Amino acid sequence: MRVGVLGASGRMGSTVVEAVNGAEDMELAAALDHGDPLEKLTEAGAEAVVDFTLPGAVMGNTEWALKHSVRPVVGVSGFDAERIATVRGWSEETGTAAAVIPNFSIGAVLLMRFAGQAAKYFPSAEIIEAHHPRKIDAPSGTAVHTARMIAQAREGLPEFPDATECDPDHSRGAKVDGVPVHAVRATGYVASQQVWFGGEGERLTLSHDSTDRGSFMPGVLLAVREVMRREGLVVGLDELLD
Amino acid sequence: MRVGVLGASGRMGSTVVEAVNGAEDMELAAALDHGDPLEKLTEAGAEAVVDFTLPGAVMGNTEWALKHSVRPVVGVSGFDAERIATVRGWSEETGTAAAVIPNFSIGAVLLMRFAGQAAKYFPSAEIIEAHHPRKIDAPSGTAVHTARMIAQAREGLPEFPDATECDPDHSRGAKVDGVPVHAVRATGYVASQQVWFGGEGERLTLSHDSTDRGSFMPGVLLAVREVMRREGLVVGLDELLD
Amino acid sequence: MRVGVLGASGRMGSTVVEAVNGAEDMELAAALDHGDPLEKLTEAGAEAVVDFTLPGAVMGNTEWALKHSVRPVVGVSGFDAERIATVRGWSEETGTAAAVIPNFSIGAVLLMRFAGQAAKYFPSAEIIEAHHPRKIDAPSGTAVHTARMIAQAREGLPEFPDATECDPDHSRGAKVDGVPVHAVRATGYVASQQVWFGGEGERLTLSHDSTDRGSFMPGVLLAVREVMRREGLVVGLDELLD
Amino acid sequence: MRVGVLGASGRMGSTVVEAVNGAEDMELAAALDHGDPLEKLTEAGAEAVVDFTLPGAVMGNTEWALKHSVRPVVGVSGFDAERIATVRGWSEETGTAAAVIPNFSIGAVLLMRFAGQAAKYFPSAEIIEAHHPRKIDAPSGTAVHTARMIAQAREGLPEFPDATECDPDHSRGAKVDGVPVHAVRATGYVASQQVWFGGEGERLTLSHDSTDRGSFMPGVLLAVREVMRREGLVVGLDELLD
Repeated sequence: MRVGVLGASGRMGSTVVEAVNGAEDMELAAALDHGDPLEKLTEAGAEAVVDFTLPGAVMGNTEWALKHSVRPVVGVSGFDAERIATVRGWSEETGTAAAVIPNFSIGAVLLMRFAGQAAKYFPSAEIIEAHHPRKIDAPSGTAVHTARMIAQAREGLPEFPDATECDPDHSRGAKVDGVPVHAVRATGYVASQQVWFGGEGERLTLSHDSTDRGSFMPGVLLAVREVMRREGLVVGLDELLD
Repeated sequence: MRVGVLGASGRMGSTVVEAVNGAEDMELAAALDHGDPLEKLTEAGAEAVVDFTLPGAVMGNTEWALKHSVRPVVGVSGFDAERIATVRGWSEETGTAAAVIPNFSIGAVLLMRFAGQAAKYFPSAEIIEAHHPRKIDAPSGTAVHTARMIAQAREGLPEFPDATECDPDHSRGAKVDGVPVHAVRATGYVASQQVWFGGEGERLTLSHDSTDRGSFMPGVLLAVREVMRREGLVVGLDELLD
Repeated sequence: MRVGVLGASGRMGSTVVEAVNGAEDMELAAALDHGDPLEKLTEAGAEAVVDFTLPGAVMGNTEWALKHSVRPVVGVSGFDAERIATVRGWSEETGTAAAVIPNFSIGAVLLMRFAGQAAKYFPSAEIIEAHHPRKIDAPSGTAVHTARMIAQAREGLPEFPDATECDPDHSRGAKVDGVPVHAVRATGYVASQQVWFGGEGERLTLSHDSTDRGSFMPGVLLAVREVMRREGLVVGLDELLD
Repeated sequence: MRVGVLGASGRMGSTVVEAVNGAEDMELAAALDHGDPLEKLTEAGAEAVVDFTLPGAVMGNTEWALKHSVRPVVGVSGFDAERIATVRGWSEETGTAAAVIPNFSIGAVLLMRFAGQAAKYFPSAEIIEAHHPRKIDAPSGTAVHTARMIAQAREGLPEFPDATECDPDHSRGAKVDGVPVHAVRATGYVASQQVWFGGEGERLTLSHDSTDRGSFMPGVLLAVREVMRREGLVVGLDELLD
């Protein structure tokens, strides 16, 4: 399959270029940067395009790709329900498959899935995420998403037990749908997440740790392969895992 | 539901008696020990019976229970394929449901399930189990079972990379179906298991830790409830989890 | 050596009674409870006394013991500088040794010591403590003490890097002398603490986990032995470790 | 201070060149490779020289440096007692300080020190080391050294409890001076080590994790600074830490 890359000189984009070049079943059709015309994709026969540009550019790119039968795999962050609905509309209209993937780490996505499956069996659950200290927001989007999945899986069950009366300096974490989330910011960490489940006399701890953005590439290649053999819009890597 | 307990004065049995007494939807029908006649179960109206006796007693107990329409939940260890086939035969013959559960820890069973689901996405996987130092065999049955699940899920994939040429004192663990298993025996541990998955620039670590046999009780109660509303033979807690 | 126990029917006190009975070099002289006269200690020939009573009783007990040449080992919590000064005065006046020990866990005390030693070599450090969900205050006293030791060891060094601008729900932990402290409250935990140090391309993680109050007994026995062969007042288990 | 680097185009050497260039109190005097004459060091006014060449070259380099009053900091591996004695002789003869450092990771060296300090307080201890799967020997030199420190600190204490009778496939690890050492080889790991201490009802776990050779640079710079202000031969980073 012939694959284009948008945002090809950025940190993620350049890693994707390498990964596509290294994949036996793919060929790099075109590596485009800010300013390059999208027509180069069709001229080069791109069948799919991986987009790691910016929130301001991605919607235009995606519309163009779908209308020219190039299947977009979108890694740009910040897709809300409205943007997803818009892309779904274009995909249906054009009959061209697309994928919007908020997190390309297969490990992180598996951790979220497992957390959702385990949640109903444990009376207690807390999330600890750790990222590099240059990150400006806390907690991470992945942690918020994981907390929501845990809360959803526990609907109807008793609240977490917690007798804390005195915590003047907020050591008990942010409550996201009732699930405590703690954020660590430390040199030596890239992107890590742990979910601590506790029950009477036992603990189940799920831990994922990314130390390099190379860890996202198996997820990117998986999404490209799947968008080529599916129809319609895929949202999230989880749908693509067995 | 009215529940009997066999082996009721043993360490696990007595904990089960407490758990049944504490469950709102259950009543303790009878707590029997070595020497007590099984007839007490039917006299007391037991609908299900939890068996934590010994390998030499369990088959007789189970046959009797099934033939008297008391649903057995068997926690005695060491059930091979032959014993399972025999119990399945009795269950079909009598039309009475039964459950044989090698591990009642919901957490440990979830960890095994997750390990099986994750295995195909990572090039490397190793198991580290830790138990109290009075355990006479290594590695643990749960670790062996987990290794087999990982190996099965990776069928057809490349072997784990490992350039080790020199390891004269066997530090690389036992290979169970090719999966390295390391056993720790240390004071302060009861029954713990970790699975370490590794991929390019990332790690997924699943960890379960039992510090008390109370941790098995949610699994025992779940098995009792399920054997009451199902038909046929259930083998393993995994079938009973969503 | 002959040892008395005050608060002998409490949870900690009764465990101490067992531990003294099990120690080859000790004899239980007297096990006293609320209401028992302290004279029983001297009548029974107690040389040392372990006090696990309450803040309202401990000062009176300690003064009495010191004035009767019985060496007190005080495990009651909440000793501030004033109380320590008072006990030191009594100890000097009477020439009788004493020990005030805020934390009898050798493992927890070693962890604090190691954290203090490591702190100056790492640009980042955060503390995660986990306790049972019945605890009413957060973070734990041990975590606060550990944070202070880390802050002191890093005096003059740059602050921890942290670009967080947006953390509306307080996921970044309580800052204790500038050190982030996160508190987990979960079933299945008794008293645990982790210190996460991070540096360029590396992490050092120190973790201590108590699952049973039996873990405090080696520290209690050590303190008794040391108070018998030392002079003056000892504050904290750290002074008693090599 | 003016610093030379030998083996400057190797993986470690080139990282040292960067680190020296980035240190405010250092200047890169000369970066030499295989074939370059050592005289360049003295011509460039090097006061110290970091050697990351090979076992076959390092002794000649070190003798030359000491005889020309350039203080060597040796990072080449495989220094036995004989080599150390030889370097010590040259250092004494010439009155020039030198350092032989088997492990430049401050974190790894601290972990070993802490393990040695904790060992006598716990009845059980095991080591788990994890490295990339291209490593050909197991267990790692650091793990062997850590095991020896633990064994030495426990001299005279009871052996680790271990009732294992049946372990046909060697899951219990290599015994190094009686301390079990388990070696994991997995993609995603660079160089990690954990020491698991266990006692009645408690665990102390020390964990160090290197994900990048940049983690060795603080140790290299520390050794250079210390060799400039000390006399005689220093062996090991531990002597240089407070």
